[in-house]
Amino acid sequence: MFGLPEKVFLCEVGPRDGLQNEKTLLSVEQKIELIEAIVDAGARSVEIGSFVHPRAVPSMADTDEVARRLKKREGPAGLDPAGSKVEYRALALNLKGVERAHAAGLSKVKVTVSASPTHSRQNSNAAPEDVIESFGQCAAFCREKGMELSGAISTGFGYHAEGIIPLDQIEKVVRAYLALGVKELSMSDTTGMANPKQVYETMSALNARYPDAIWTLHTHNTRGMALANILAGLEAGVTRFDTSFAGLGGCPFAPGASGNVATEDVVHMLHAMGIETGYDFAKTMAAARRAAALVGRPGDSSMLRLPEDAGL
Amino acid sequence: MFGLPEKVFLCEVGPRDGLQNEKTLLSVEQKIELIEAIVDAGARSVEIGSFVHPRAVPSMADTDEVARRLKKREGPAGLDPAGSKVEYRALALNLKGVERAHAAGLSKVKVTVSASPTHSRQNSNAAPEDVIESFGQCAAFCREKGMELSGAISTGFGYHAEGIIPLDQIEKVVRAYLALGVKELSMSDTTGMANPKQVYETMSALNARYPDAIWTLHTHNTRGMALANILAGLEAGVTRFDTSFAGLGGCPFAPGASGNVATEDVVHMLHAMGIETGYDFAKTMAAARRAAALVGRPGDSSMLRLPEDAGL
Repeated sequence: MFGLPEKVFLCEVGPRDGLQNEKTLLSVEQKIELIEAIVDAGARSVEIGSFVHPRAVPSMADTDEVARRLKKREGPAGLDPAGSKVEYRALALNLKGVERAHAAGLSKVKVTVSASPTHSRQNSNAAPEDVIESFGQCAAFCREKGMELSGAISTGFGYHAEGIIPLDQIEKVVRAYLALGVKELSMSDTTGMANPKQVYETMSALNARYPDAIWTLHTHNTRGMALANILAGLEAGVTRFDTSFAGLGGCPFAPGASGNVATEDVVHMLHAMGIETGYDFAKTMAAARRAAALVGRPGDSSMLRLPEDAGL
Repeated sequence: MFGLPEKVFLCEVGPRDGLQNEKTLLSVEQKIELIEAIVDAGARSVEIGSFVHPRAVPSMADTDEVARRLKKREGPAGLDPAGSKVEYRALALNLKGVERAHAAGLSKVKVTVSASPTHSRQNSNAAPEDVIESFGQCAAFCREKGMELSGAISTGFGYHAEGIIPLDQIEKVVRAYLALGVKELSMSDTTGMANPKQVYETMSALNARYPDAIWTLHTHNTRGMALANILAGLEAGVTRFDTSFAGLGGCPFAPGASGNVATEDVVHMLHAMGIETGYDFAKTMAAARRAAALVGRPGDSSMLRLPEDAGL
């Protein structure tokens, strides 16, 4: 266990990945309450929603309004819990989504593509590299408007209809993103199929081969390995991780399975290991507890399940 | 992530640590059914119960009968799923327990002491080292009868009333065990407070300082870190792990919290990483599913929770 970092940067994806599949639809006010609670706990990056077709994802239909009505935290960049700048981003799938994000006052968007050719054809009727090429208009729009653009690689570690995604397939996607000028990339274990050895080897290779890219690891706890995969990511030099309050967020390909790794579980483990996150643990727990209460189910969180008097 | 082993040795502790705190009491036949199912799945070491006072732990009152009526698998030592020898052991707290184990036909017992002086005083009104000294009679009896004796170090990574247990305190316990001739030792994270950095550092130090000892890591998933802790243990050179079917087994100090790490979650992760266990995964899942059905609750198992058609 070599080279653990002193601090890491977490992005809260609960308002998007966590809430998008919930049966209970939250109001704009409730979404803003959760976003502000996790920012107050220390989050300096929040994925607040997605700009997709409201019929496709009804729970995200009000992302424009959420973005507009949020009190955005400004200030110097950094992890200062007392009040540094927060990055509010949203997911978009095409130019229309990016335009909506801009109109709603966001300065950062994330596009996404599936690393699995099978999954990509099912979703977009195109190979992953061709989907990314279609993001060219998004990249041009962002450059023109001074917006930041990041790229996600979903099912990056495996897809049921395809098995493990070979590294050379992932690299095609990486090179397509870099060709567009998109350097901030997230490797997403959408299906929760990644194992720690695979994460270590994949992220070590990507870090070494694409030194200009800035990597985020996005884990799901579907098979219980999310924290082990984060540990493997840390050992491979990854210092940015996506997490979701209360572990909300299922995998659409594994209904009933658990969701994104829980923010509070990650913050707890990292702090126990002496790694800084900038988060206040008690406030993180309070935000997670509120998120679980609002969606009306406990989510998948070891720390929320623990009795309050159990000690840490 | 260096030096991952090619194979590991798992011990199934579900029949003891898993069932001892369950409200639903299983019959002798049901316990034997579960033990035989997990042996059939590949377990080559099973902790079948404990010889403690029946008033203290009513669920373990029939361990004598379980031990006597089990069809014990004999054969060459090893991990051969087709039929190598199985080690059946039980927990004992004193000479009387060891004598009962012998009378019931077991050839291996495990004694246990808390590494936490506070916890040890609460449980046994004595310091950990003094508790181990009192095992001298057990060790002499085992030598005389040709029985194997192993030693557990409970709350080895932390205890609520004491915090993290310092390494020099653990070493006192280790030296006391070694002085009795007990070399097979398990470090037990009874409270689920261990974090991966602590596990890596502790197990690396113990491996280096006590080369004659044979270490087992016993993890609880109370704070969701069990698989990450096993990964850290592997990296520190540990190749023996205790697991429990369906993740049964609570921590008595954290009621409602999750239990021992689930056998099926460990087998799944290790196989995904290319590490042999000697277990058949489908049979392991079947044994875990049966254990959960018999106790009447789902336990704490990511793999059991996963829909059967989710793929692996």
